[in-house]
Amino acid sequence: MIAVEKNLIIKNNKKIVMFVADGLGGIPYINNKTELEVAKKENLDNLAKKSLLGLIEPVSPGISPGSGPAHLSLFGYNPIEFEIKRGILEALGIGIELEDNDIAIRGNFATIENNKIIDRRAGRISTEESHKLIDLLSQNIKKIEDVEVIWGKGIEHRFVIILRGEGLGDNLNDTDPQKENLEPLKLEAIDEQSKKTSRILNKIIDISKELLKNEKKANYILLRGISKKPKIPSFQERYKMKALALANYPMYKGLCKLIGMETFELGMEFENLINFYEKNYENYDFIYIHYKWIDKKGEDGDFYGKVKEIEKLDSYIPRIIEKNPDVFVFTGDHSTPSALKGHSWHPVPILIYSKEGSFYDENAKFTERDCLRGYLGIRKSYEVFQIILALANKLEKYGA
Amino acid sequence: MIAVEKNLIIKNNKKIVMFVADGLGGIPYINNKTELEVAKKENLDNLAKKSLLGLIEPVSPGISPGSGPAHLSLFGYNPIEFEIKRGILEALGIGIELEDNDIAIRGNFATIENNKIIDRRAGRISTEESHKLIDLLSQNIKKIEDVEVIWGKGIEHRFVIILRGEGLGDNLNDTDPQKENLEPLKLEAIDEQSKKTSRILNKIIDISKELLKNEKKANYILLRGISKKPKIPSFQERYKMKALALANYPMYKGLCKLIGMETFELGMEFENLINFYEKNYENYDFIYIHYKWIDKKGEDGDFYGKVKEIEKLDSYIPRIIEKNPDVFVFTGDHSTPSALKGHSWHPVPILIYSKEGSFYDENAKFTERDCLRGYLGIRKSYEVFQIILALANKLEKYGA
Repeated sequence: MIAVEKNLIIKNNKKIVMFVADGLGGIPYINNKTELEVAKKENLDNLAKKSLLGLIEPVSPGISPGSGPAHLSLFGYNPIEFEIKRGILEALGIGIELEDNDIAIRGNFATIENNKIIDRRAGRISTEESHKLIDLLSQNIKKIEDVEVIWGKGIEHRFVIILRGEGLGDNLNDTDPQKENLEPLKLEAIDEQSKKTSRILNKIIDISKELLKNEKKANYILLRGISKKPKIPSFQERYKMKALALANYPMYKGLCKLIGMETFELGMEFENLINFYEKNYENYDFIYIHYKWIDKKGEDGDFYGKVKEIEKLDSYIPRIIEKNPDVFVFTGDHSTPSALKGHSWHPVPILIYSKEGSFYDENAKFTERDCLRGYLGIRKSYEVFQIILALANKLEKYGA
Repeated sequence: MIAVEKNLIIKNNKKIVMFVADGLGGIPYINNKTELEVAKKENLDNLAKKSLLGLIEPVSPGISPGSGPAHLSLFGYNPIEFEIKRGILEALGIGIELEDNDIAIRGNFATIENNKIIDRRAGRISTEESHKLIDLLSQNIKKIEDVEVIWGKGIEHRFVIILRGEGLGDNLNDTDPQKENLEPLKLEAIDEQSKKTSRILNKIIDISKELLKNEKKANYILLRGISKKPKIPSFQERYKMKALALANYPMYKGLCKLIGMETFELGMEFENLINFYEKNYENYDFIYIHYKWIDKKGEDGDFYGKVKEIEKLDSYIPRIIEKNPDVFVFTGDHSTPSALKGHSWHPVPILIYSKEGSFYDENAKFTERDCLRGYLGIRKSYEVFQIILALANKLEKYGA
């Protein structure tokens, strides 16, 4: 980001609130309308009439992002430049607290026969079965050499391993060949510093194989995305703002913590986040609030469910803007159209309300189509973050 | 720029005229209208109905540019790639003619006590006082070793020093610590070639200190932005066009000269520029005309003053298009909304009238909002320059 590279960031006492509805954007589905076009959302629509509107693209045209890169982009980090590997994202997703030198690994239960993988996901075994097997492995594999081995339970065939100890590098290949009917790849250290990691993981693979040998489906473990925490400059040092992240789900909290935002354990009720926001508003320069349930309905292909979640979310808007932040941003991390039942590449509508005057359209509503005609145009999410900083007077002029 | 990198530029006899109104863009202020929406500007509005319209961004979303980078961008140079340091811009701004190996330095008078800076701007001493002190310094410090020392008078505490001689590098730190209650930074050469520059500037600092020791406020000089003329490829070699720059203010003339445009001393009347334009139109392929006063009214927060300046400028349009250039461009270097009293990040409206047919909107006026809906969209200024070249048939096809 130019503002960071050229040292243009100014510290001031203006406050920015960013409310992110996960998977917000849609495409026309029922009666040629999107979920945002059908939802009754008076608060958002009223705000749209006095806000900058536009569409944001998290990564690149046509690319459907995961929530990790999509969020980094919202916070002004180009997600191509700052990559978070699979192991770390999975660990964050199940709420594991990572220490600086931990190695995180994404694991899959798989089915092996005569040393060939015949099912890379062990027939998508149930989460319950999977958790039982993790109990078995974690009771038997707690430490290898001087390294602590921590097992994290995931959904279905997925799990996480954390190695905690000294002298562990993360430059290793995946063992998952990504195709069936092949042998698992041999795990090898790509540099000297990763030899110990390789030795320990190979032992874990061997012991697991022995422990799982009587399982019909899940008789092998495949490892990938072996990595340490990425070196991402913290939000606070980058933007000179003290930041609070309010989210119910662990992945979002973990990601925010990774970039130095403060996070708190507030349970699974959205109401708790808003209560916390109201009580602690004064202590932060930047507050991010995450609303997950819209994405879930989109993933289920539940158009009217997504509409209802948007309406529910809308009812929280007055409590958020009641605090009168200098800049209020409402958007999504990515689109999850019910029509597509998954994350999509479609740019996401964004609304930026600021105290500073700007271009409004008094006839606009907060919809994909009205945002397309907005003053912001179609831009990358991480570029819009620079505009958000400008609206909070946090940028010096470039050059004389 | 792709057209330059891929050698696509064609020399032909088509003429381009670019008329730049400094600080042109605004944001809604009085009755939710911008200055351009209020101004009566029949000529520009008539032209808008048969021109390509769009919005241009000089540097990057959210970034407010200085006039230097904003102009480079208008001329097709990415201002992040081609940076002009402070010393050079200040020297250009006060009209100093720079030779190729000159070192230019931006100076500030400061107040020092017990070797600590207690005011970095010497209480913003008056321009008159400042000029008297520069007279004193320039009479006493004319030459150090074999290097000529040239002093340039600025506004208030600001001045410029030029070192002219052999063997002078420009890789040195600033002495201004950017904060008060600190000692001035020690000036040090960062490479071997800059040692002589460092030695000479240190002598200048010492002799000045002695000469200024009885001053109450301006008893010290701080130096920054020490630099040679940047190596920017000339407009003529880049685009195969002979270019004329018509501007009243030294900074704009200086900048244009830096990239090889021809400039002339035509005084402070805009009328003089237009007369010169009319007489010399045939001799150039590209003519840039600069109108400064709109920016000044914007900086003053004088909405109706800016409106009047736009109306005045509008009256010159017929004389400019009378010459019937193949492409006529009207735009600003950056926005200076009266509402914000300074340069801002907001994209600037642009109109490109060309003889070649194109997409017009017969209902359009030349305003920010109509330009937002224009065919050009929102683009970087330096990217639009490539479109301007295309409209003048100055670009070959890329690939077969």
